[in-house]
Amino acid sequence: MSAYQELERRFARHSQLRDVAAMLHWDTAVMMPPGGAEARAGQLATLDVVAHEILIDPGLAALIEEASDADGLDPWQGANLSEMRRIWGHANAVGSDLVAALSRASSACEMAWRTARQENDFASIIAPAEELLARLRESARARGEKLGLGDYDALLDQYEPGARSAQIDTVLDDLASFLPDFLERVLAHQADQPAPLALEGPFDTGAQKKLCVALMKTLGFDFSRGRLDVSHHPFCGGVPEDVRITTRYDEKDFMPAMMAALHETGHALYEQGLPDRWRHQPVGGARGMGLHESQSLLIEMQACRGREFLSFAAPMIRDAFGADGEAWEADNIYRLGILVKPGMIRVDADEVTYPLHVILRYRLEKAMIAGDLAIKDLPGAWNDAMGEFLGLTPANDAEGCLQDIHWYDGAYGYFPTYTLGALAAAQLFEAAADALAGLGADLARGDFSRLIGWLKANIHAKGSSLTSDELIAAATGRPLDSRAFKRHLETRYLG
Amino acid sequence: MSAYQELERRFARHSQLRDVAAMLHWDTAVMMPPGGAEARAGQLATLDVVAHEILIDPGLAALIEEASDADGLDPWQGANLSEMRRIWGHANAVGSDLVAALSRASSACEMAWRTARQENDFASIIAPAEELLARLRESARARGEKLGLGDYDALLDQYEPGARSAQIDTVLDDLASFLPDFLERVLAHQADQPAPLALEGPFDTGAQKKLCVALMKTLGFDFSRGRLDVSHHPFCGGVPEDVRITTRYDEKDFMPAMMAALHETGHALYEQGLPDRWRHQPVGGARGMGLHESQSLLIEMQACRGREFLSFAAPMIRDAFGADGEAWEADNIYRLGILVKPGMIRVDADEVTYPLHVILRYRLEKAMIAGDLAIKDLPGAWNDAMGEFLGLTPANDAEGCLQDIHWYDGAYGYFPTYTLGALAAAQLFEAAADALAGLGADLARGDFSRLIGWLKANIHAKGSSLTSDELIAAATGRPLDSRAFKRHLETRYLG
Repeated sequence: MSAYQELERRFARHSQLRDVAAMLHWDTAVMMPPGGAEARAGQLATLDVVAHEILIDPGLAALIEEASDADGLDPWQGANLSEMRRIWGHANAVGSDLVAALSRASSACEMAWRTARQENDFASIIAPAEELLARLRESARARGEKLGLGDYDALLDQYEPGARSAQIDTVLDDLASFLPDFLERVLAHQADQPAPLALEGPFDTGAQKKLCVALMKTLGFDFSRGRLDVSHHPFCGGVPEDVRITTRYDEKDFMPAMMAALHETGHALYEQGLPDRWRHQPVGGARGMGLHESQSLLIEMQACRGREFLSFAAPMIRDAFGADGEAWEADNIYRLGILVKPGMIRVDADEVTYPLHVILRYRLEKAMIAGDLAIKDLPGAWNDAMGEFLGLTPANDAEGCLQDIHWYDGAYGYFPTYTLGALAAAQLFEAAADALAGLGADLARGDFSRLIGWLKANIHAKGSSLTSDELIAAATGRPLDSRAFKRHLETRYLG
Repeated sequence: MSAYQELERRFARHSQLRDVAAMLHWDTAVMMPPGGAEARAGQLATLDVVAHEILIDPGLAALIEEASDADGLDPWQGANLSEMRRIWGHANAVGSDLVAALSRASSACEMAWRTARQENDFASIIAPAEELLARLRESARARGEKLGLGDYDALLDQYEPGARSAQIDTVLDDLASFLPDFLERVLAHQADQPAPLALEGPFDTGAQKKLCVALMKTLGFDFSRGRLDVSHHPFCGGVPEDVRITTRYDEKDFMPAMMAALHETGHALYEQGLPDRWRHQPVGGARGMGLHESQSLLIEMQACRGREFLSFAAPMIRDAFGADGEAWEADNIYRLGILVKPGMIRVDADEVTYPLHVILRYRLEKAMIAGDLAIKDLPGAWNDAMGEFLGLTPANDAEGCLQDIHWYDGAYGYFPTYTLGALAAAQLFEAAADALAGLGADLARGDFSRLIGWLKANIHAKGSSLTSDELIAAATGRPLDSRAFKRHLETRYLG
């Protein structure tokens, strides 16, 4: 067996163990009774250790060296080897002492955060958050040295491989200079129009589920290879052959459950469209969190919140709830789905203000990783930025810098992927519409086949054979920028 | 770290991986969409390989040697080390070539069996079943040599550690000489009485589930550490902290779902009562399949099909279905639950005829493993034994020797555990009733606390620190025999 083949064998086992963990994560969120939590943590920790041991085996580095010197790898095999090297680098950059210290600091900080947020007590989180940040900065430096990256980029690379903050700065700075003024215009425009009519519930959750399933089938979700269930936070989990998506039903409003199901279906279609040939190899996986988010946002925000698709879906929605009347016309449902209202909370934000929440966090976390912003100064910096971006001042830290778990469980470098996804969704949807004449008419009759086919050919089936930026450039003719997203916002919110 | 401590560390990891597999097995039976089957098989195979590698690591034998020579192990540690040695012996007895050949033969034979049973075509299964039997006999010999056991006992030891066929022969021969005549007396007694009244459905499955949950809570099943779901065959899976039991609802008859839920609750209580201190060590696990079955049969057959418990449950049953009238009185429900009717199919058999189905299989499989019965002669031998034991002749092999999967997926040595469980259930229940004055009155008011407490102290909390026979002898004052079971049958079916 060649060194390359042996690497494929080892990474396949690694992938299988990660798949097992993915199934258990789904079970944890959807099925597990509360008393099972500690046992489950032990199961997941064991899987982590066993999978990690594959990556830190001293023989792996030698195999990667040997395979790199060999001739005859085809481009996919070459890309696979590059991904193996990147994954190996991340796994071996951080010594086991630091891994253990990070894990302890992260658990302690996350636990402290739950209390601090509930009791709106930022002071209580300062010490554990500083400890976690210190360990994370060590980890960022170690990763950066191994991978030839700056500290922040080394963290970012875990979530969006190949993404670099220098490029993200340009794109997000441009958006940051556009959005605050644009938001004012949207609010003025919205105020000039009569408010959309409210839809009166209650909405039976069984009927909501039936509607979600019917819409998911319309989009091409294959229920022989996946499920829809309920969890506290909607997510897309499982494995490509068995994608487990979740939503959450509210009897007072069916739109959140429906839009979450459509959003997660976007993620699911990416997983279901990955290249079979490279299943269980690094090159065969989804590219990164940002590109993954582009697929969910393309489906939810670009396609399903648009006028065309809602003209198709409105009769299904009316049927689902036995409803009728002006409020249930497609145009009113469309207008309900694009209401803009600046608020304190990121996860409740609309499409226009969401990027401002992200850019704020991106700038602050870069400063924290660079050592330019201390944890104790975070509330002040946060509140200043909220005033600048959204004209709002949080009443307290619970609705300010304590609202998200990310920094308190160690996920620095994750936030920008949300907005990179939104920008990529707009750019890809525009390119798809250019390539597919009559795409709007397709969506107006619930036909997603050409759109999903285009996404599969240009994104899904390429796995991780290129970076996200290379994939986007190949699919749209240029690297990621904010132009398509801005055009989309102008059309939708000022049209 | 001492050799013994290192062994504990390695076996704890092994246990965690087996727990992960247990959760996936539950998911496979209860949740998985059909398209996920192949991916799931890959996940389970990977877990098997990774767990097996722990056991065949060459260093493990040396650690067991070293720990065996060391002083200072307490009795539980000593028992733990003995179990480690037994598990190591099984894992290392069979070379990887034979493991692979067995796995192939078993898959091929199981697949052929599905068709053969459906099409009632025994001839088509002969070649694959012979191949599988040949490999199994090799495996039995290899295990036997490693463990100092005869061939059949080496297979049996996988399912009921410490059980030996010489002792089982005595017990089951005694039962075999008792049951045919006893069955005739029961049938005559039954014919002398008016038939019990039928319960008229349909029975809403939601109401059935509510009833099952209420009864499970009565028995002490902890729903914060477990679930009740639906699967094609009821089973008890998951892990002690998160026991997943299943049942199956039939709108025409609620008794099978209810009795299955109670049966599986007996298994679950065993798991939930295992010693916390020894969790993830071999000595902390349930003892064997026979003893496990004794716990489910004690709950279902001894306790819950008895007059006392049904006098408590009958009003709950009436409430569940909004029913009333003579047919719904406890006495009628009791009599419905103990109808005896000889039939061809083991899984449909009543408590009286079930052991005959098992003894027939036990004798035939011992002969096959010994080389005294060829696969091609199985139908004739089967049909002769059915005539002798039950006075019945199968119309075809589908309702004869093709009915069970066991021999066709390689589970020789498993069948006797069903009846060992039934005998142990009777012997333990009799001992519990002796020890706990007024136990019948407890059950008549739905109070299982003293019974479960007695089982926990005498069986559950002892884990695998003793053999099944030692556990039974310690709890009841004598090794397993058929006396208590025969007394139970006489009281219940001729009383």
